[in-house]
Amino acid sequence: MIPVHVRHQENPPMTTRTLTPDLLQRMDAYWRAANYLAVGQLYLFDNPLLKRPLTLADVKHMLLGHWGTTPGQNFIYVHLNRVIRKYDLDMIYVSGPGHGGPAVVGNTYLEGTYSEIYPEISQDEEGLRKLFLQFSFPGGIPSHASPECPGSIHEGGELGYSLSHSFGAVFDNPQLIVACVVGDGEAETGPLATAWHSNKFLDAASDGAVLPILHLNGYKIANPTVLARISHEELEQLLRGYGWSPIFVEGHEPALMHEAMATALDTAVEQIRAFQRDARERGERTRPRWPMIVLKSPKGWTGPKFVDGLPVEGTFRAHQIPIKVSATSPPEHLRQLEDWLKSYRPQELFDANGRLLPELAELAPVGARRMGANPHANGGILLRDLRLPDFRDYACDVPEPGVRGIGDTHVLGPFLRDVAKLNDEQRNFRVFGPDETLSNGLEALFDVTQRQWDAATEPTDEFLAPSGRVMEMLSEHQCEGWLEGYLLTGRHGLFNCYEAFIHIVDSMFNQHAKWLKVTAGLPWRRRIASLNYLLASHVWRQDHNGFTHQDPGFIDHVVNKKASVVRVYLPPDANCLLSVMDHCLRSRHYVNVVIAGKHPAPQWLSMDAAVKHCSEGIGIWPWASNDQEADAPDLVMACCGDVPTLETLAAVSILREHLPELKIRVVNVVDLMRLQPSSEHPHGLGDVDFDTLFTRDRPVVFAFHAYPWLIHRLTYRRTNHDNIHVRGYKEEGTVTTPFDMTVLNELDRFHLVMDAIDRLPQTGDRGMYLKQKLRDKLIEHKQYIDCHGEDLPEVRHWRWGQSDGSRKQP
Amino acid sequence: MIPVHVRHQENPPMTTRTLTPDLLQRMDAYWRAANYLAVGQLYLFDNPLLKRPLTLADVKHMLLGHWGTTPGQNFIYVHLNRVIRKYDLDMIYVSGPGHGGPAVVGNTYLEGTYSEIYPEISQDEEGLRKLFLQFSFPGGIPSHASPECPGSIHEGGELGYSLSHSFGAVFDNPQLIVACVVGDGEAETGPLATAWHSNKFLDAASDGAVLPILHLNGYKIANPTVLARISHEELEQLLRGYGWSPIFVEGHEPALMHEAMATALDTAVEQIRAFQRDARERGERTRPRWPMIVLKSPKGWTGPKFVDGLPVEGTFRAHQIPIKVSATSPPEHLRQLEDWLKSYRPQELFDANGRLLPELAELAPVGARRMGANPHANGGILLRDLRLPDFRDYACDVPEPGVRGIGDTHVLGPFLRDVAKLNDEQRNFRVFGPDETLSNGLEALFDVTQRQWDAATEPTDEFLAPSGRVMEMLSEHQCEGWLEGYLLTGRHGLFNCYEAFIHIVDSMFNQHAKWLKVTAGLPWRRRIASLNYLLASHVWRQDHNGFTHQDPGFIDHVVNKKASVVRVYLPPDANCLLSVMDHCLRSRHYVNVVIAGKHPAPQWLSMDAAVKHCSEGIGIWPWASNDQEADAPDLVMACCGDVPTLETLAAVSILREHLPELKIRVVNVVDLMRLQPSSEHPHGLGDVDFDTLFTRDRPVVFAFHAYPWLIHRLTYRRTNHDNIHVRGYKEEGTVTTPFDMTVLNELDRFHLVMDAIDRLPQTGDRGMYLKQKLRDKLIEHKQYIDCHGEDLPEVRHWRWGQSDGSRKQP
Repeated sequence: MIPVHVRHQENPPMTTRTLTPDLLQRMDAYWRAANYLAVGQLYLFDNPLLKRPLTLADVKHMLLGHWGTTPGQNFIYVHLNRVIRKYDLDMIYVSGPGHGGPAVVGNTYLEGTYSEIYPEISQDEEGLRKLFLQFSFPGGIPSHASPECPGSIHEGGELGYSLSHSFGAVFDNPQLIVACVVGDGEAETGPLATAWHSNKFLDAASDGAVLPILHLNGYKIANPTVLARISHEELEQLLRGYGWSPIFVEGHEPALMHEAMATALDTAVEQIRAFQRDARERGERTRPRWPMIVLKSPKGWTGPKFVDGLPVEGTFRAHQIPIKVSATSPPEHLRQLEDWLKSYRPQELFDANGRLLPELAELAPVGARRMGANPHANGGILLRDLRLPDFRDYACDVPEPGVRGIGDTHVLGPFLRDVAKLNDEQRNFRVFGPDETLSNGLEALFDVTQRQWDAATEPTDEFLAPSGRVMEMLSEHQCEGWLEGYLLTGRHGLFNCYEAFIHIVDSMFNQHAKWLKVTAGLPWRRRIASLNYLLASHVWRQDHNGFTHQDPGFIDHVVNKKASVVRVYLPPDANCLLSVMDHCLRSRHYVNVVIAGKHPAPQWLSMDAAVKHCSEGIGIWPWASNDQEADAPDLVMACCGDVPTLETLAAVSILREHLPELKIRVVNVVDLMRLQPSSEHPHGLGDVDFDTLFTRDRPVVFAFHAYPWLIHRLTYRRTNHDNIHVRGYKEEGTVTTPFDMTVLNELDRFHLVMDAIDRLPQTGDRGMYLKQKLRDKLIEHKQYIDCHGEDLPEVRHWRWGQSDGSRKQP
Repeated sequence: MIPVHVRHQENPPMTTRTLTPDLLQRMDAYWRAANYLAVGQLYLFDNPLLKRPLTLADVKHMLLGHWGTTPGQNFIYVHLNRVIRKYDLDMIYVSGPGHGGPAVVGNTYLEGTYSEIYPEISQDEEGLRKLFLQFSFPGGIPSHASPECPGSIHEGGELGYSLSHSFGAVFDNPQLIVACVVGDGEAETGPLATAWHSNKFLDAASDGAVLPILHLNGYKIANPTVLARISHEELEQLLRGYGWSPIFVEGHEPALMHEAMATALDTAVEQIRAFQRDARERGERTRPRWPMIVLKSPKGWTGPKFVDGLPVEGTFRAHQIPIKVSATSPPEHLRQLEDWLKSYRPQELFDANGRLLPELAELAPVGARRMGANPHANGGILLRDLRLPDFRDYACDVPEPGVRGIGDTHVLGPFLRDVAKLNDEQRNFRVFGPDETLSNGLEALFDVTQRQWDAATEPTDEFLAPSGRVMEMLSEHQCEGWLEGYLLTGRHGLFNCYEAFIHIVDSMFNQHAKWLKVTAGLPWRRRIASLNYLLASHVWRQDHNGFTHQDPGFIDHVVNKKASVVRVYLPPDANCLLSVMDHCLRSRHYVNVVIAGKHPAPQWLSMDAAVKHCSEGIGIWPWASNDQEADAPDLVMACCGDVPTLETLAAVSILREHLPELKIRVVNVVDLMRLQPSSEHPHGLGDVDFDTLFTRDRPVVFAFHAYPWLIHRLTYRRTNHDNIHVRGYKEEGTVTTPFDMTVLNELDRFHLVMDAIDRLPQTGDRGMYLKQKLRDKLIEHKQYIDCHGEDLPEVRHWRWGQSDGSRKQP
């Protein structure tokens, strides 16, 4: 049973104390040291130990940074250090609030990890000077927990993902505890508000634990926070309703708060261990009401109480720089800053050389137990390769192009199933998705694993278990956040999602891609497994969902990020999908976006051909082309994506039947970034290679899966760009058949043929005649679909290479 | 005091009943009618009244649609009809669950609104046939509540925004109650999870009320839902913790459930009215714990219990089509479908012509009280123009180009302040933002209004009041959802946001843009006010936030949507910003994106010039150009965005000083869509006009605010495209000075000059010499900033037209 309140009382009874007076005094000194470092980072250009009176020249010209959350986080950090030592915990720290940079930087400096990684930031006066200077300074480090900071897997820039990241980190890490500081500002975001429910997806036996510390700091930038301004009763109900057992630590008087926090943390850690023992040793299966801490402390705690007559500590005015100090500010501000710095009594904390006194330094854990040095927070260190089956073993048989497949993702399913199986022992692979693993065609996974689910079950449920490799919650934010946390701590995974709704995590993708870019430039950060997206249920097959479910624009968003980080694949069939996914699961430090269909669709390439095609990323399909004997084709028909490939081949078969003298080349694109110049993307084709494929002057009709202008954006520098005519999705169509969708967006075989003829004046009257036939065909299509609700038989039953109606008589 | 549980008991005590037996029986019949219509929509191609035995030919070939949520929503709708009549409520219905299309379509058909809007869907057998056929059928309507459905302001495609939309609808609508059905699937999304907190932002006196009905349907597509699988105690704590007073209605036996639901709704409505009376008549200011209903009923309620031996009702198998009926399915499926349809006893519900019996039809409200006919759900009907002050009155004085401004958004603030003031009486304008109204420079708003806030306050708070025109919660999802709901019900507003984090609502923008596109094509839907984004705190000025706060890609995302809907403006200075914002606030049925700076920056145009420039959207700045006498310029220097404009003008001044013989034209772009061909966007320049501005063959150096390739994407069809060289943000730079940001992304004046020289071979040795000087200057910059943490004085103090160091000696 957890005591609900450990609120300190102003006159605490003289009962047994968690902290001895000596320990309390030293912890308070350590906290003061961290606070001193924070104010130093915010303000000091020089004179880091205040060995001489503070002057304006000692203060940075541009004062940029955030004080508000920092002392509270320093307080938490010093207390976590204590329980790590007491219980020998394997613990990392996630700093959720917006701008806790000074806290995590200062504390990792105090514990020694910062100087180990950045030797020039040494543990002496000169190191302190540099530590202070670099903060929020050009060429320096940001004002929030950032990749540069050791011990961080979570960037405090955009808000809302701390809890999801923390849960992702502890999945399959049974010894790990993530202490996750949740800001009461970020707690207002949607992603954080639903992330509390992660406790229904955690297995006490095989996963670690998250200890949320809700920091009721009271204010955001300018506003109070919601959770700080509801009644205590409501807040407690809310957290209990989320399934947590809150322990409240409230107050402002340091000594009392130290004791209360220490007691709360001991209680929480012991409760976590008890739950874990129950699950691991006694097989207890009821969902624990995990402990959490609510720390209510003043914003800008220990900072100036009043500045210019206005209250600061405990108000929104403590958010950034509490005291403006500059040549134009009132002179007393400088003195007030000096008094503030001295209030921490630095001479009692650091020796004359600027080194933390040994009796304080020993409060920190040692070695890899230091939160800044814990390898989980630099997951690449722990990353082990996946054991992958040979993807060729899952090939579908393609004796000739155009045989009907069962749905490409359904072919991928058994491969993923065996990835899950082969890595079951090392427990480092999970599949995430918002309730769509079945809907996206990956049902084979459930042959070997389950959905991890720790809420109640009923007999009619399927595929639920306390532990499993599939994570499903109807929140793309949670899926993304969990997966990111899982990857950042050195494991592997896949996010499968409806294509349109992956936009829900656009901004999370941004932040992760930025993290990858920055960490790739930090030699001490090891590379992690790639973030893999499988976007099934794509724009062309929203037969009954219609317009709201159609948006292929995620890749437009993705390619805005650094070329060194992003990869986009559109496999045209199942064998290509297998090859691509194998590649993605082996890759490191990328974001891979894979778009694939789930519905029965024609298959084009044998596995050998698929492997070759995917390793090239782009190529001519000779069996579909008839320009082999010619110096150059009359026409290039290019395609990218499963549906555009089908329509292109159907168009080619019409052209070859009716205008057999035309020399046509079919080019298929799997790896979208091959289209960019090699100067722009590492996968980019050289200009000569590009010209060899697309010619320098022949018309190109390009059928593309997504918005057509993306192709122009990628190819505008190419020689033949002016002759590239692109069809793609242009926000037309809603509930209708798959073929009608292509008609409404003019990507269908008939429009593609007409587009080609328009660019081939040499086809003359026969071209004109064929166009007229196709216009009639489109009218027939429209009438047929209105009447029957399905496509023309010749479209439904079209097969490459068969002399069917559509080829005889368009 | 609200009774917490109105759970029905299997043997209810014989106390006073809310429903008379006759009313209960008729309501049940009405519900059966709605359920019958739902099954008909899912299945029937013909034979809508089952006048002859059901055959396969009567069943649609493609069975696509969703049964699961439908009977529960039908149940809710018929009960809401009763309380609307009983209390004469002004109520609309928001259908949050994913696929409640059959419910809202069926019910608006039963109440008569559907046939009024779509006369061909008449209230007779033929109308029924068409009603059934159109559902999830090519050319028909989607399987969720969609714009085509009368009474809907909320599309059930993407999930999570129902509560935010509902609150947006009731702000400033004191008589309105929105009955918001929240699906337990969507309740797992982040946006919905935080939207419960909207009750802290509602004023009982001047706003209406939202009545959430959490539908514990139990399952999503394939999984159970979290909220259905936590304990009753937890769920109740959660909802009470969110500040609501839940009333539980649980069960499955119709008669008992009718009585329980009726009692619950009467209780809720009376409580809402009591709270409103307290606030309005007695000035009560404590935040009400508003009532809500938790309806726990089986998924697919009243549908088949078992199919093929597997349980269906109450399981995930009821989600879509519970019984597959086709030529290849077991023959008994057809009989089972017929039995299911007949279980509703249609002959007791409809007359021989297929018209609902009058004793049932009279249960629906009449006229505009019908939820399908309520004008709030077709907000354009209620839309009144804003009263706008003359924006010219807020002009900053620009006696000459380059005078220093106070920050463009700070100039906009007083204009918005007076918009708020002038429309205070008609209460139809609000400003939304995640805690950033002050940070984004709109402090003037607080001269006349406050942040609406109904949680606790403290004496040190600022600008909080129970009612105000500014809505701030640290959730972009909430801001967007509230604003959308506000606009959809016929009011006006503005969302101000950090540029990078507007990506958080990418997907919400998608859905709103799609809504606008579809509703523009529905003659009965009136146009609503535009959704206006003001993106301040943009990519170039994240001085201390750095890399995480840099992403100008929202406009790449926006321009993927239909050209008829989206507009993008980048005013170069404050007077242009005023002109643009005035235009946006007057516009209808668009999404307007406005990007502006908040920091002190040079001003270029007088108000007269700004009005002219903005009305053109693009134009030559003659005072900065020196090609007036020439046949054609040697060079076009183009710019779009405030920072690129500054750097371009600085570059031009260097070029004009050092290479005075060059004829340079400066083109500035305010309205980004002017760059697209007129065939692609209504704002697009004709090709001749474009060529006139940008020439057909001269080099163009284009400095752009966002990712550079967007300019290529917009201009690739233009004559002179191959000569357009674009600089923009390319994911470089983090914490640094504003000028250094431009240097790192090669958008700065020195790089722009070098770019120009590279394209002007005629500059010869003098060009080479200038380039070398500028390379030295960049080195000097780097050294200076590393040393001083600020920009070179000549950069900091550069002024257009002054002969300063940077112009003399680069």
